[in-house]
Amino acid sequence: MSVHEFLAGKAAKCERALRAYLDSWADVPPTLREAIEYSLFAGGKRFRPALALGAADIVSGDDAVALPVACALEMIHTYSLIHDDLPAMDDDDLRRGKPTSHRVYGEAIAILAGDGLLTMAFDMAAQCNVPAVIRELAQAAGVAGMVGGQVIDLESEHRTLALDELRRLHAAKTGALIRVSVRAGALLAGAAPEPLDALTRFGEHIGLAFQIADDILDVVGAEEVLGKPVGSDAANDKSTYPALVGLDRARELAAEAVAAAVDALAPFGPEADTFRALARFIVERDK
Amino acid sequence: MSVHEFLAGKAAKCERALRAYLDSWADVPPTLREAIEYSLFAGGKRFRPALALGAADIVSGDDAVALPVACALEMIHTYSLIHDDLPAMDDDDLRRGKPTSHRVYGEAIAILAGDGLLTMAFDMAAQCNVPAVIRELAQAAGVAGMVGGQVIDLESEHRTLALDELRRLHAAKTGALIRVSVRAGALLAGAAPEPLDALTRFGEHIGLAFQIADDILDVVGAEEVLGKPVGSDAANDKSTYPALVGLDRARELAAEAVAAAVDALAPFGPEADTFRALARFIVERDK
Repeated sequence: MSVHEFLAGKAAKCERALRAYLDSWADVPPTLREAIEYSLFAGGKRFRPALALGAADIVSGDDAVALPVACALEMIHTYSLIHDDLPAMDDDDLRRGKPTSHRVYGEAIAILAGDGLLTMAFDMAAQCNVPAVIRELAQAAGVAGMVGGQVIDLESEHRTLALDELRRLHAAKTGALIRVSVRAGALLAGAAPEPLDALTRFGEHIGLAFQIADDILDVVGAEEVLGKPVGSDAANDKSTYPALVGLDRARELAAEAVAAAVDALAPFGPEADTFRALARFIVERDK
Repeated sequence: MSVHEFLAGKAAKCERALRAYLDSWADVPPTLREAIEYSLFAGGKRFRPALALGAADIVSGDDAVALPVACALEMIHTYSLIHDDLPAMDDDDLRRGKPTSHRVYGEAIAILAGDGLLTMAFDMAAQCNVPAVIRELAQAAGVAGMVGGQVIDLESEHRTLALDELRRLHAAKTGALIRVSVRAGALLAGAAPEPLDALTRFGEHIGLAFQIADDILDVVGAEEVLGKPVGSDAANDKSTYPALVGLDRARELAAEAVAAAVDALAPFGPEADTFRALARFIVERDK
């Protein structure tokens, strides 16, 4: 199976489950539902759900057990994009080629759409019935994870970070959720400590590769492909890998992270081939 | 035990647990931690934790099992206050006699402090180890509960609601979280269906009483006692019980809700006396 087929299959599975979940909601104000659907079905790659479902596949050959958490991960990711785009944060007008939530629905509804997605993500996640996984998810998304990373990011504007600081920023802001995506899928599929540890390291390395690739795309990507203004990091005066180490060295660092990710999968056989291809795809993608 | 002793005892227990939980956090950006502590320890009454802990007392005589959820309820309540006060929402400058979060830390950090509290609330809640309770909590705080109620509230500004609409608004915005406070405590203490049902109805009625009393206080309360500008609902052109039915009828409705709450406790003996007194206290308090 190609990476594209893998991602498309997992995305379709996740979207069906998300649609069914939203259809089950009663008594939700129409504006709120519309704003949530607008962002949740805006053409995201469903990368985090694919990691959770793919990890479960590798461990047990069955991804069904990871589906609620896969949906929860996408809901958390979507809420974070809505809040990051707010005028008080990055003040972005476009996301995935469409006007951002607050440009369409206003700031108040955008904040509440984010709050609603984050809250309901835990209703969804709790369907996995494993409190330890719910806790890991909250911690990865929380004050020492994604939310904390966003604070560091805001406080790092207009100053140049050391490479080390930049790595810590991304480990919190985007790395923690990618890492827990893989771990949650593995844990729910009943992974033993060693495979769990291997998949955790895979998650850490692809998280880093993903972020470096994102920074590179912000410099070299075409605006119509990315669906957001190219060079927005530079305009916001944010530290990036290409800005800190140059484009060539950034590409080397991304390749090293991919190699480390593939290396982490050594304990697995062909069942992990899709993840190996996925790691390479991350730095080759054009959006 | 007086209502004041009951509330003070439960508040102290909840605050100790919250302090210990925050002390256990590592790698949290200092600004984020400070902003969260600023709002979480701003002198709240800890009303929702008291309901959760008190319900557990009534059911089993032991409130320890409800402590994680009690803390989670206060974290969710606090996040909702931070976000409600934002310029894009109610644009309030004072809360509990102190400048609101965004006035002290700026909008971005206030949004993130709220996001962090909401996220970590589910880390805390998951320590109860009962996924069904986590789901009820998320649903009460979510798109058909508190977040949905806030959307209805925003959309109801500058128009006069029917009494029926006002009741639905409050049932979602504040009622759902008060109701789930009682239910979660009862469920975790192992309540059988009939006591659970009785306590659920108690929670619904005191939620209503609490809101009517709040509306009345907004008209008649002294600013220095409340710690927020009196008449802010009228300034925001919000529908309230006194505005819709007059002050005297609003007081009657509050008294009726208290009577219904006390009535719901009929299946219980003296072990529910504190809850009976609490229901009466809600409409007699001056802040």
